[in-house]
Amino acid sequence: MRILGVDPGLRTLGWGVIESRGSRLTHVANGLCRSGEGALADRLLALFRQLSAVVAAHDPDAAAIEQTFVNKDGAGTLKLGQARGVALLALAQAGLEVGEYAPNRVKKTVVGVGHAEKAQVDHMVRLQLPGCAPEGPDAADALAIAICHAHHATAPRLRELRA
Amino acid sequence: MRILGVDPGLRTLGWGVIESRGSRLTHVANGLCRSGEGALADRLLALFRQLSAVVAAHDPDAAAIEQTFVNKDGAGTLKLGQARGVALLALAQAGLEVGEYAPNRVKKTVVGVGHAEKAQVDHMVRLQLPGCAPEGPDAADALAIAICHAHHATAPRLRELRA
Repeated sequence: MRILGVDPGLRTLGWGVIESRGSRLTHVANGLCRSGEGALADRLLALFRQLSAVVAAHDPDAAAIEQTFVNKDGAGTLKLGQARGVALLALAQAGLEVGEYAPNRVKKTVVGVGHAEKAQVDHMVRLQLPGCAPEGPDAADALAIAICHAHHATAPRLRELRA
Repeated sequence: MRILGVDPGLRTLGWGVIESRGSRLTHVANGLCRSGEGALADRLLALFRQLSAVVAAHDPDAAAIEQTFVNKDGAGTLKLGQARGVALLALAQAGLEVGEYAPNRVKKTVVGVGHAEKAQVDHMVRLQLPGCAPEGPDAADALAIAICHAHHATAPRLRELRA
């Protein structure tokens, strides 16, 4: 099973693709989508197009995204929400089921503790996906989300179910 | 100039299309997009498809959306943000420039005061768009946003600029 993990953000959106065969995980690709400058609608369109291109290029069987941590920064939550909505849309439009995982669950699965630092996540992602070099913390987080999905998705419904 | 106003929401998204010729405004159509039940990604996809169909059917020259009021309800802000992101995407994908207006500015333009009740907005929308019957408060708000854009958009850039 090929899994696409997504770490949404308005400025930078991280993505990572892994393959899961039994208990063996392998790295396929990872990267960043960038919204650039300009009007909000155009930035969201840029993210959508780049993520849709990733989906088309790597043809995943399943997808996973981080649950958004809601804090008191309403403006930040709104920005993240808009980017997350567009990311979910790109995945749904490709017929992918999307697993959602809380940040602590992702860290607990990948690092072993729920409150790991970014550097620990990056380190454990590289350890569990030999040969993988994340393009940045957002891409490492996206790979961690994909790993989490590989461990927890017991009965992933594939796109065939929708076709 | 034909203007599409959008009042975003995750459960129900209101839309309204008006035509502006000089100072004369006429109602074209209004309605609601509904996300239904199901997974979040599927609900966002439903909103996106319905709003994209509205754009295709009514072929507006410009679009306007309400600026989101950010409050302490982080979960609500996140939901609204996701729906708003998808709405902005549908408009940008159609090549439409999107004007953004604060709720108070919309009310001040349409009703005359910034803190108008929903019933007042509905009443003034019907008065300014003879023959118009909004499908609900969200559709009335969307028409009010379109009216606001008609009054304030001094130099709307049309889709031709992008073509």
